Amino acid sequence: MDQSRIVTAAVLIIGNEILSGRTQDVNINFLACELGEIGIRLMEVRVIPDAADTIVATVNEVRARFDYVLTTGGIGPTHDDITSECIARAFGVPWELHPEASAILLDHYGRQNLTEAQLRMATTPRGAALIENPVSKAPGFQIGNVFVLAGVPRIMQSMFDSLKHRLTGGAPLRSRAIVSSLGEGLLARDFKALQDKYPAVEMGSYPFFRDGRAGTSLVLRATDEPLLERAADEVRAMIRGLGGTPVDEAVV
Amino acid sequence: MDQSRIVTAAVLIIGNEILSGRTQDVNINFLACELGEIGIRLMEVRVIPDAADTIVATVNEVRARFDYVLTTGGIGPTHDDITSECIARAFGVPWELHPEASAILLDHYGRQNLTEAQLRMATTPRGAALIENPVSKAPGFQIGNVFVLAGVPRIMQSMFDSLKHRLTGGAPLRSRAIVSSLGEGLLARDFKALQDKYPAVEMGSYPFFRDGRAGTSLVLRATDEPLLERAADEVRAMIRGLGGTPVDEAVV
Repeated sequence: MDQSRIVTAAVLIIGNEILSGRTQDVNINFLACELGEIGIRLMEVRVIPDAADTIVATVNEVRARFDYVLTTGGIGPTHDDITSECIARAFGVPWELHPEASAILLDHYGRQNLTEAQLRMATTPRGAALIENPVSKAPGFQIGNVFVLAGVPRIMQSMFDSLKHRLTGGAPLRSRAIVSSLGEGLLARDFKALQDKYPAVEMGSYPFFRDGRAGTSLVLRATDEPLLERAADEVRAMIRGLGGTPVDEAVV
Repeated sequence: MDQSRIVTAAVLIIGNEILSGRTQDVNINFLACELGEIGIRLMEVRVIPDAADTIVATVNEVRARFDYVLTTGGIGPTHDDITSECIARAFGVPWELHPEASAILLDHYGRQNLTEAQLRMATTPRGAALIENPVSKAPGFQIGNVFVLAGVPRIMQSMFDSLKHRLTGGAPLRSRAIVSSLGEGLLARDFKALQDKYPAVEMGSYPFFRDGRAGTSLVLRATDEPLLERAADEVRAMIRGLGGTPVDEAVV
């Protein structure tokens, strides 16, 4: 495919437990890193409640705007797990038992033990392609450009591993992070001049306070590796010129 | 005020560093917990890039839909800090030097040292009311129902402490979390029956795997404390009836 094309994604975190503060989200960061590694840019994340109209409207908005949409949460067997039927509504297709998914659950739980509630987890929008769940079996699914995953991080991560061969990235964004003890106020003018000189390199500045030390990380991102390295060299020289010591930092 | 009114909020996390995966967000969880404590329901979170058109459109959409909007990130002195000028654009007002803010920065940095870049941090939408920053001085600000905070967690948290007296909550949502080793598939039918019996109590089910043990947390939320306790008692009885041992868990 065209390696210069920018491939985009949105992530929807579906769940009252994130919005109530009960749970600290870690799915955004995992997906941001994984998508970046395969050349897909995460452009927007929304955290929304387990509310049908909100889910349907949000899915339809973002699936039209981005190449890929990944959702997490709301696909378990309980009454508050409404993501799957909302995705069916969003696509305007029936929500029905998926034969392959019900076979997986029958095999896993046994016919004696399988509850009606668990069978909900085998019900998907018509036309959905399953996503394997190596951890707890109940599958996720894909319909169109929307990938529907569990919310429990360990399960979500295993599902992502199962699906990622279906995603086609564009030009991967390479990055450099250069740290110094100089403050942003001192760096700002010259750093802006370098951003103006290298418009194809996205340059961000992140102040930090850690282990009692203050400083700034300057992060550069570009698809063109030689250009990125030239810009990074100029950033290092800029820091030295301002009396600082540039240190390269590992970045994701 | 009317204690039965539901007061809502949205949070906008503005910053490429969250979307790239470089930074694990912790601001969502902090704000979710703090807002909940003062009776304000976080209804939606969006993570968006440092892109002017996206910021302006998103701010205008959410400030019309929710009682309060809190933004984090993008108010430092560097070229990628564009939140403040975007808020001015969203409100259709000039972006100009705020006399009180520039006095704070002059006092903090000294006239000799204050850079033009730092003075950007004293530039706000016309009509903005400052939010004190006890950590690093450069203030946040409020305009209309939008509160604009720093992205660095420690600074953001200190700003939130400075502003929270300006927020008026509605009826606070009380909660109970009841844990057992029973799986969701087993609990689902009876739990749904209780949700149907208590429509004013929001009931959620969260499976977990920790320390090698699997189980389910059932979380109940309601504004009516006696009703909540009655529903919680029924949930405990339900768990016992299914052969489990209910354990109350601390919740936020």
